[in-house]
Amino acid sequence: MNVKTLHKGNNCDFLFKDKMPEFLSKHEYTRQTIFFNNPPSIVGKMAVGGCKEGDGPVGKYLDKVHCEDKIGEKTFEKAEIDMLTEAATGAIKSSGIKKEDVDLFIAGDLLNQITSSSYVARDLGIPYAGIYSACSTMSEGLALASMMLNAGYFDNILCATVSHFATAERQYRYPLEYGCQRPPYAQWTVTGAGATLLSRGGNGPKITGATFGKVVDWGTNDLNNMGASMAPAAMSSLIAMFNDTGTEPDDFDLILTGDLGKLGSDILRKLMSEAGYPLGQNYIDCGNMVYGIDQKCYQGGSGCGCSATVVNSYVLDKVISGEYKKVAYFATGALMSAQSCYQGETIPCISHGVIIEA
Amino acid sequence: MNVKTLHKGNNCDFLFKDKMPEFLSKHEYTRQTIFFNNPPSIVGKMAVGGCKEGDGPVGKYLDKVHCEDKIGEKTFEKAEIDMLTEAATGAIKSSGIKKEDVDLFIAGDLLNQITSSSYVARDLGIPYAGIYSACSTMSEGLALASMMLNAGYFDNILCATVSHFATAERQYRYPLEYGCQRPPYAQWTVTGAGATLLSRGGNGPKITGATFGKVVDWGTNDLNNMGASMAPAAMSSLIAMFNDTGTEPDDFDLILTGDLGKLGSDILRKLMSEAGYPLGQNYIDCGNMVYGIDQKCYQGGSGCGCSATVVNSYVLDKVISGEYKKVAYFATGALMSAQSCYQGETIPCISHGVIIEA
Repeated sequence: MNVKTLHKGNNCDFLFKDKMPEFLSKHEYTRQTIFFNNPPSIVGKMAVGGCKEGDGPVGKYLDKVHCEDKIGEKTFEKAEIDMLTEAATGAIKSSGIKKEDVDLFIAGDLLNQITSSSYVARDLGIPYAGIYSACSTMSEGLALASMMLNAGYFDNILCATVSHFATAERQYRYPLEYGCQRPPYAQWTVTGAGATLLSRGGNGPKITGATFGKVVDWGTNDLNNMGASMAPAAMSSLIAMFNDTGTEPDDFDLILTGDLGKLGSDILRKLMSEAGYPLGQNYIDCGNMVYGIDQKCYQGGSGCGCSATVVNSYVLDKVISGEYKKVAYFATGALMSAQSCYQGETIPCISHGVIIEA
Repeated sequence: MNVKTLHKGNNCDFLFKDKMPEFLSKHEYTRQTIFFNNPPSIVGKMAVGGCKEGDGPVGKYLDKVHCEDKIGEKTFEKAEIDMLTEAATGAIKSSGIKKEDVDLFIAGDLLNQITSSSYVARDLGIPYAGIYSACSTMSEGLALASMMLNAGYFDNILCATVSHFATAERQYRYPLEYGCQRPPYAQWTVTGAGATLLSRGGNGPKITGATFGKVVDWGTNDLNNMGASMAPAAMSSLIAMFNDTGTEPDDFDLILTGDLGKLGSDILRKLMSEAGYPLGQNYIDCGNMVYGIDQKCYQGGSGCGCSATVVNSYVLDKVISGEYKKVAYFATGALMSAQSCYQGETIPCISHGVIIEA
């Protein structure tokens, strides 16, 4: 499918009705995807969730569920560190590889100065590269790690991320004690951590390609409406990947976005149709599947723990069992801070992706 | 030089007198350095500073100096974005490479959610990988970019970072309006941005190796004393690099740390002597050289703009002119947040390094 097929749609009658024709007419092709000749294997993984996540549809696939928000710690932030530690050490353990043989830890999270990741890196004692890509941290990490392993720089790299409902609400919106009413288009930050251990050797699922996203900002500025903000970024990166790989949506068993939620993923479907790449039943969003409709999480889950837990439980389990042979995992991140929005800025978003094959 | 020479010192009579013997006795060798067969070239660079930086010893090497703190913007944060934009576009321009041919932008900064970098990435329109490593962001970026270029994934990658005295003081310590008295061991966050364009081709200085640091935390928790906190991390990474490369300090024309300042670099000298790698006259610290003694900046400069501006002006100029043939650039970062310290945590630090050769 050629990039020119992009230009077919120009009558979007939804949220971004002015933006979509502009995108289609100005879109310039850039190569954003790289391919791996020696694709690294996923040899270890672990997903840890909170109580709400444990009760949701993905709950039974999680390796560990904590039903106390602070996990016995004094602060939510320390609980977040505990979950990330648990996922990171659990992923190493599940691989059978010794901690000393893990060459690099790539991690990031939503907290200011990605402190959860850095404190876990301190305790792990593994060389560490901190990254920040909001809720697309997991896929940025997997992309960077795959590049390093494919090139033979290291043998084993651990990627991880975490989020916590209480720390994210306090930092980005209001402290929970404030009892703020949530609008119907809001999402619920997932309390959970996911970790993946990638290796040059091993027989697990392979990462065969990675796409680095561009920042896309279509002018939204509502901190409660992340899904709508991020959908155009997901579209941009998915189109780049389809073009770079010469594939269409039907060529994948599963196309997975990170945390667009119900509203955001509906918007993405419309945008992709307009762009000439309609998404079928093989498209799902982690935020849309992590909570049940009865859990009152409105549009669904968000946060970097959202796709990290779903991918490191449900999705990779089904890749390993052979149910999914080819998965495009495109997590999505909103890169604003509370301060930047208070200062009148809009929300810049990004989506990094990796292609996982059985 | 063998890692066993580490064990020779055990009578440190300074700040970390209990920590150093523990480090020396427990130190385990890990390979942290990777080498490049096709080392990328530095083909473009730009350094932008504020007024104080322009007045300092490095001032005459800066490409641009702004003497108005807000650069005509409403907020310090927007001024920070302007400086980073100027450095990023200036580095591309100085290379003669077209912006469309820059494949990836790797950047990070000190602000919560690295917003300066993300807003600049939005306006540049280049695929973007956000990183966070506090004041060692520049060297982490150069390390990641060099790995990607050496492996042939991309042709040109732009690395950049920025900091601003007013935004950093407000976020990490107190707003300037509070008029807080600074202790004598404080440093001054550099107002400045630096950008480097790396390419697979070209004839500029080469990056021949990169070292990923481990997180080191020797128990300091004073947000005003960054130099002392970061010195052990610099030591850890420098020792790893000397071991991995089979070199000694004398094998380099210049060994450069990021922003330890006067106190921090004095501590590093002592630690390195104790560890068996005494640093000579070829060791300098960017924080220690960026301000003059008459500029009342106490221990000197800090912030990720500190080493980014010094390296992209004074240091690379002298590598290009042939004065320095082999430089080890190890920026240092303190990975805490104000919140983590208020919650009783100590300051985890890291140092990533690259080897630059003429």
